[in-house]
Amino acid sequence: MNFHDVTIGIIGATGAVGSVALELLENQGHPPEKIVPIASPRSEGKKLKYFSQDLIVRKIEKELLDNLDAIIISATSQISEKWAPIAVKSGVVVIDDGSVFRMNSSVPLVVPEVNGQDVEWHTGIISTPNCTTTPLVMVLDALRKLSSIKRVNVSTYQAVSGTGSRARTELINQTRSMIFDQDYRIDVYPKPIGFNIFPHVDDFLENGYTKEEMKMVNESRKILHDDQIRISVTCVRVPVHISHSESLQIEFTDNVNLKEAIKLLSDYSGITVMDDTENDIYPTPLDSAGQDDVFVGRIRKDIAIDNAISLWLSCDNLRKGASLNAIQILEELIKRDRMGLNEL
Amino acid sequence: MNFHDVTIGIIGATGAVGSVALELLENQGHPPEKIVPIASPRSEGKKLKYFSQDLIVRKIEKELLDNLDAIIISATSQISEKWAPIAVKSGVVVIDDGSVFRMNSSVPLVVPEVNGQDVEWHTGIISTPNCTTTPLVMVLDALRKLSSIKRVNVSTYQAVSGTGSRARTELINQTRSMIFDQDYRIDVYPKPIGFNIFPHVDDFLENGYTKEEMKMVNESRKILHDDQIRISVTCVRVPVHISHSESLQIEFTDNVNLKEAIKLLSDYSGITVMDDTENDIYPTPLDSAGQDDVFVGRIRKDIAIDNAISLWLSCDNLRKGASLNAIQILEELIKRDRMGLNEL
Repeated sequence: MNFHDVTIGIIGATGAVGSVALELLENQGHPPEKIVPIASPRSEGKKLKYFSQDLIVRKIEKELLDNLDAIIISATSQISEKWAPIAVKSGVVVIDDGSVFRMNSSVPLVVPEVNGQDVEWHTGIISTPNCTTTPLVMVLDALRKLSSIKRVNVSTYQAVSGTGSRARTELINQTRSMIFDQDYRIDVYPKPIGFNIFPHVDDFLENGYTKEEMKMVNESRKILHDDQIRISVTCVRVPVHISHSESLQIEFTDNVNLKEAIKLLSDYSGITVMDDTENDIYPTPLDSAGQDDVFVGRIRKDIAIDNAISLWLSCDNLRKGASLNAIQILEELIKRDRMGLNEL
Repeated sequence: MNFHDVTIGIIGATGAVGSVALELLENQGHPPEKIVPIASPRSEGKKLKYFSQDLIVRKIEKELLDNLDAIIISATSQISEKWAPIAVKSGVVVIDDGSVFRMNSSVPLVVPEVNGQDVEWHTGIISTPNCTTTPLVMVLDALRKLSSIKRVNVSTYQAVSGTGSRARTELINQTRSMIFDQDYRIDVYPKPIGFNIFPHVDDFLENGYTKEEMKMVNESRKILHDDQIRISVTCVRVPVHISHSESLQIEFTDNVNLKEAIKLLSDYSGITVMDDTENDIYPTPLDSAGQDDVFVGRIRKDIAIDNAISLWLSCDNLRKGASLNAIQILEELIKRDRMGLNEL
């Protein structure tokens, strides 16, 4: 089976991630007749431009699944929980962008560059990681060839598109109101995001961390097949449209060489090193938005921990953080001839 | 001598920090005849409202110094370097907000809550720390009563007002242009700041860190009188007008108790704990802007390091980060009867 023979349903096709998935498939030349955009009933019948054709948005229903080989779900947890098992029963492979299945032991959680082989044991559903986890594990996977990684400390700078299209509207509306000194509404977030930041992404847990922060910890361990690595995260929302950035401090077991670290990052598929501080070259969200790679800069020997490296990354949360990784999982399945479902 | 008897010159009175210094002195009821606003020649003659009076902006000249007891300098390094020694020779105590004298061994670097006693050995010039250092050392000073601090990892989220008024205009202009899909200019920063962030505050150094980052390392050690503490920092500019925020991971020698940590922070003068995640209570820049205190939240036992605490802070960079601390240094000098100059 070739990739362009696969009929792909996209649940959440009108959303922030789904619309980028369509754009990426169009860029790859995926045939329009092999794509079925699916969304909530209120979007049914909506037309989405794809090459010179209009794709008609369908509402989700069981009959639709019969003609699909795979679906990418980027919708609510409720939609994933309800429709993924139904799709699997219909013989459709599910790539789920949500968090509900990620830590399920029968569901591979895959970043193809890191653990592509994990697609082989899927039983119908494969999860794509949280948008902040994916760039993190790619950098850690590149660098663990230097020495095993003991500890990681991360602070994030997350764009509003991670929350969805409504959050982008809220950012623009609040910002404009603030510039013109007008009242503004707070609908999507618990705090204003216009000219503001807050250390609160997803719900708080008993241990004082948020669900988002613990996703990064637990998902990274699963993807890296490393239960020993210790990770601490602070997730922060910033008034940026697209691309999550992360400030990382990575502690190794042994002393590491900076040049080797830079070389490993440069050689890693899907990572672009953008690090020339003399010429003000380091990645920003405006650089990485709309790009496929994880961009890494400010790579330096840490001055507080002997065996550590600190660095900075920026990655399009809608592309490699979500839709691109989902499509790459599908490509990995085809490459490994694993579109069929394994028995549980 | 009482504080209200002190005639204070403010060099940089029309700038971002100087104008807040005037506002604070007005709030404290400092007499208008005891204030001399000073700025560059192009602002000479400008009128600044102070109570119901107009203060006339003066350009800096030696004769002006004869009538002053103290000056607060918040201008360029060149201005500090040139005028601070001249002022000292005229018997004027200098509180300098710039970075040039901070690491000078004959210049105390003071945050009154942490090392107020250091004003006692001044020889004319006292420096106030970098706007990101001040809240950091207050939190570290509060927490080192638990156990000695081994290491700190910091990522900052810094407002544009740290750069000055021009940067605020650039933020507004770029943001407005982006909202309305128009071209925009980049004048103040090396990268766009509208809906963007960048890990670049002050110049880059040989070791891969920036001057701003190393200021936080070196100034903290000097203020805390602790050459052993190891600090690593990543400084990041964010599209926020006022208040710097910091994500901290603090490692202690011994295991520490979270409740005790929260109590120490709550009891510390100048710190307000704002930490009730169940009710979405944690500080943001919009909360701390215009406030005197350092606001601390998200206080939790770190999950990656056994003897560590992670937390989040936000602090008005123009107030406690600059002008308020400068005024408090002056108050400390008066309280300790040290307005006179010690012999070198």
